[in-house]
Amino acid sequence: MKILNTLSRQGFSPKGLFLFIAFLSLTITSQAQSDEDIEEIREIYDNVLTSSSCYDWLHFLCKRIGGRIAGSPEGTAAERYTAQMLDSIGADTVWMQEVEVNYWRRGSVAKAKVVNSELLGNVDLSTVALGFSGRTPKMGLTAEVIKVWDLNALEKIPASEIQGKIVFFDKGMDPTKTNTFHAYGAAVGQRTAGPRSAAEKGAIATLTRSMTLKQDDIPHSGVTVFQDQTPIPALALGMQSANLLSELLDSEKGIKINIQADCEHMGKQKAHNVIAEIKGSTYPNEVIVVGGHLDSWDIGEGAHDDGAGCVQAMEVLHVFRRMGIRPKRTIRCVLFANEENGMFGATTYAAYAKNSKEKHIAAIESDAGGHTPRGFRMDALKEISKSAFKQAQKWREILAPYGLYYLDAGGSAADISKLKSQGTVLFGYRPDSQRYFDYHHAETDVFENVHKRELELGAAGMAALIYLIDKYGFTFE
Amino acid sequence: MKILNTLSRQGFSPKGLFLFIAFLSLTITSQAQSDEDIEEIREIYDNVLTSSSCYDWLHFLCKRIGGRIAGSPEGTAAERYTAQMLDSIGADTVWMQEVEVNYWRRGSVAKAKVVNSELLGNVDLSTVALGFSGRTPKMGLTAEVIKVWDLNALEKIPASEIQGKIVFFDKGMDPTKTNTFHAYGAAVGQRTAGPRSAAEKGAIATLTRSMTLKQDDIPHSGVTVFQDQTPIPALALGMQSANLLSELLDSEKGIKINIQADCEHMGKQKAHNVIAEIKGSTYPNEVIVVGGHLDSWDIGEGAHDDGAGCVQAMEVLHVFRRMGIRPKRTIRCVLFANEENGMFGATTYAAYAKNSKEKHIAAIESDAGGHTPRGFRMDALKEISKSAFKQAQKWREILAPYGLYYLDAGGSAADISKLKSQGTVLFGYRPDSQRYFDYHHAETDVFENVHKRELELGAAGMAALIYLIDKYGFTFE
Repeated sequence: MKILNTLSRQGFSPKGLFLFIAFLSLTITSQAQSDEDIEEIREIYDNVLTSSSCYDWLHFLCKRIGGRIAGSPEGTAAERYTAQMLDSIGADTVWMQEVEVNYWRRGSVAKAKVVNSELLGNVDLSTVALGFSGRTPKMGLTAEVIKVWDLNALEKIPASEIQGKIVFFDKGMDPTKTNTFHAYGAAVGQRTAGPRSAAEKGAIATLTRSMTLKQDDIPHSGVTVFQDQTPIPALALGMQSANLLSELLDSEKGIKINIQADCEHMGKQKAHNVIAEIKGSTYPNEVIVVGGHLDSWDIGEGAHDDGAGCVQAMEVLHVFRRMGIRPKRTIRCVLFANEENGMFGATTYAAYAKNSKEKHIAAIESDAGGHTPRGFRMDALKEISKSAFKQAQKWREILAPYGLYYLDAGGSAADISKLKSQGTVLFGYRPDSQRYFDYHHAETDVFENVHKRELELGAAGMAALIYLIDKYGFTFE
Repeated sequence: MKILNTLSRQGFSPKGLFLFIAFLSLTITSQAQSDEDIEEIREIYDNVLTSSSCYDWLHFLCKRIGGRIAGSPEGTAAERYTAQMLDSIGADTVWMQEVEVNYWRRGSVAKAKVVNSELLGNVDLSTVALGFSGRTPKMGLTAEVIKVWDLNALEKIPASEIQGKIVFFDKGMDPTKTNTFHAYGAAVGQRTAGPRSAAEKGAIATLTRSMTLKQDDIPHSGVTVFQDQTPIPALALGMQSANLLSELLDSEKGIKINIQADCEHMGKQKAHNVIAEIKGSTYPNEVIVVGGHLDSWDIGEGAHDDGAGCVQAMEVLHVFRRMGIRPKRTIRCVLFANEENGMFGATTYAAYAKNSKEKHIAAIESDAGGHTPRGFRMDALKEISKSAFKQAQKWREILAPYGLYYLDAGGSAADISKLKSQGTVLFGYRPDSQRYFDYHHAETDVFENVHKRELELGAAGMAALIYLIDKYGFTFE
C-alpha cells in the first residue's frame, strides 16, 4: 500500500484518488490485454511453424489427387480427402454443401501450328486450351490469323475483317506494375471476354497471350466466358510463342495457323463446398469464415491456386485445436467448390448464409498463392467500411513483425465477396505477388513450387487475425 | 486573382496576406517536390523492370565463373568481368583496389562416415568442409564422437572428456524465429567459434549442424575462425544427417566416425575491391557507396550470396546512366573483395575512405539475398542516428508501394559497417528472409534460384533510396 500513502501525503482528494486508481487499473488492464495478444499470437506462430500439417495436406492434394476441376473425379476425391482431414483434427462439425456446377473437360489435344510461313515453314506453338473453350474438328481447323492488341482494338475492327479468321490477342501483362495482380487485372479481359467478342464478329477461333510475366514458353490456361454463345476454340500461347507469332505477323502477310482442341462441355454435375467448424463458446451464431477454393485447373496440381489457400484455412482450425483455443464465435472453414469456372460454390454458400440465423461477422480468404506474407486487403459495405478499417488498424502493430505490414482497404477475394452485402467484413490474404503468375493456371503450379515456411506463415497469419477478430469483434453504431 | 479578392473582402491585412501567400507557395513547392520524387522513382522502377542488365550479369557470374573464393582464379575472373561491365555502362571511373587476403582451398574430398554402429552399420553422412577447416591424413581420421548442444554446453565439459574426440555440435537454427536471420545469428556461433573452442579442449575434429531451416540433406559451408591455432578438420552436416547422428548418439554408446578432408591453406594472395562511380555534379567529394561482396563460397555459384547484391549495386549506376540522372553527389559502386573469409576488402576500403578528402555520407549494401524486397535497416553513430532515422522516415511513404515497408534502425551489412565510425549513415537492404538459408553457402546457391523480378525490384529500390539520399542529403547540427 505504499502508493496510497505516498498519494495521500501529496494531498490527493479521495475522489481524485479514486479516479487515479480507476485510471491506473484501466491502463493496466489494457496493457495486459495487449501483452496477452502479443504472447498468444507468438504462440500461434511457434505452433504452426513447428507442428502444422498444412504442407503434408498440400502434398496429398497435389501429388495423390492433382488438378481438380469442379465436377471432375479429382474434385470429388479432394472433397472427400479434405473432409476426412477436417474430421480427424477434431472439428465440431464437418459437412458437404451440394453445389451444381458446369463441368468442362480439356481432352487430350491442344495444338497451334503455323502452316505457311515463308520465313520459318511450319512452326509448332506452345499452347493450351482456355477453360470452356470449344473443340475443333478432329483434324483441326486452319485459317488466317489477324493480330489485335486487345478488346478495345477489336471493337474498332469491322466484322468483315474478322469473319472466318483466327484472332490473336497480343496484349500481355505489364511488367512495370509492381504488384503483379494489377498487371493481371489490366490484361485478363482479353482472356475472359476476348474469345466471346471475337466470336460475335465471326472469328472461328482465338489465341491469347498467356497471363504471365515469366519469360518462358509455358502456356497458362484460365476461364473464358461464352455466356449463351456456342463456344469457339480458344487457346492461350506461351510467352515466347506469342512473341514469335507477333513478330511473324508483322513481317509476313497471310499467315495461317492450324488449331486442334478436343475439349468437351459435360453439362451439369454435382460438387460440394466442404465446411467444418469450431463452435463459438459465447456467440455460436456469430460466424467467422476462413476459406480457399478446392477446385483448380487441371494442367498443374492446383498448388498455389488454391491448394495453398485450402490447407491454410484448414490449418487455422487445426492450430486452434492443438492449442486448445476456445473461440467465442464460430470459426468456420469453407473450401469453396468452384472459383475457377462459375463461382457456384460461393453463390451457394452466400445464399445459405443469408437464409440462416447466423450473422457472418467476418470472412477471410487466401486465394493469391502460398508465398511469403505481405498483409491483408479489406472490403465491406460502404456504411461500415470506415469503421471496420479503423477497428482493424489497431491490430497492425501486432501483425507487422510477422511480415504482415498492411491491413488496408482495397478488396478481398472472389468467393467471400458474395458475403459483402450481408454486412460481413471481408479480408483477402495477400502474400507477395512476384512469383504467383509464373505458375498460375499452368503445368508449373505444382507442390515443389510452394515453400513450406511461407505456406505456414500464411496459415499462422490468418489464425492470428481470426484470433483478434474473435476476441474483439466489430462494433458498428 | 479571385483568391486575392476573396481574401481582401474577408479583411486580411497586407502582412497577413503576404504570410498566407508565402505559406501557400511553400506548400506548393513542397508538394511539387514530393510529386516529382514519386514520378522519378516510378520511372526508376519502370526502367529497371524493363531494361536492366542485372539478371544477365548474374547469369555470367554464376554460370561462366561460378563460386569465387577471394584469392582464387575465379575471384580474379569475377573482378575482371565486373570491372569490364561497369566500364561498358559508362561509369566515370573504374578501378581496382588491391586487397591482401588469406586464400584457402577446399580440395576435392569431404567425408564423414559412421564406422561402428550396431544398428546401422557403416553410414555415410552428407557433409562439407567449413571455410578454413584443417585437413585430415589421406585415409582420414577416426575417433569417438561426443555430442554437445552448443558453445555454452561445451564450456561446461572438462577437457578430459573432449580430448582425442570428434565434437558434434547439435544446435540448429530455431524455426520459430520468423526472421531467419535472427535464427542464424542465434546459432552460427557454433560454426564460427565451435571448432576453435573444441580444439582448445583437445578435440581432433568437429561436426556442426548446417545453418539452414530446410529439411533436406544438403550441407552448408561458411567460415570458421581459428585465429592463431592450428586448424583442425571442421565439417558441417546436412540437416537429415545431423538428425540421424544425433539420434544415433542418443541410442548407442561409443559411436565412431571417420572424417576425411583435403583442404589447403594457401597463404596470402592478392585480390581487389572493384570500384566504379558516377561523379557528383555539385558535391563530388560527398560519396554515397552502394555495394555487395564479389567473393562467395565455392560449392555453389554465389548467386544469392552475394552475386545478387553485386549486380544490384552495378544496376544502380546503370539505371542512373540510362535515365540520364546527374547526381549531385558521387554515387560509387564498391564490390568488396572478401566478406566471406576475413573482411579484408571492407577494412581496406574503410581505411582508404578515412584517408581520402571525401566525406562518405551514406552507404547501402545488399548482402541478404536477391529475394523480394521488404525494406532497409539503418545504422549510424549514436550522436547522429536519431536524426538520420528521422530524416529517412520521410521517404517511407514513397517506397512502401514497392514493397519496401520499413526503413528502420537495427543494423546494416558487414562490409559497409566498417564505415560507421566515419559518420556514414548505413543502410542494409532487406529482402524477404524465408528462402535465404535454403541456399546460403550450399551447392544450391545457384542462378536458377534467383527470381528475375525480385532481383530487379531490389536494384530499383536501392536506386530509389540513393536518388532520395542524393537529392536531400543528411543534415546534422
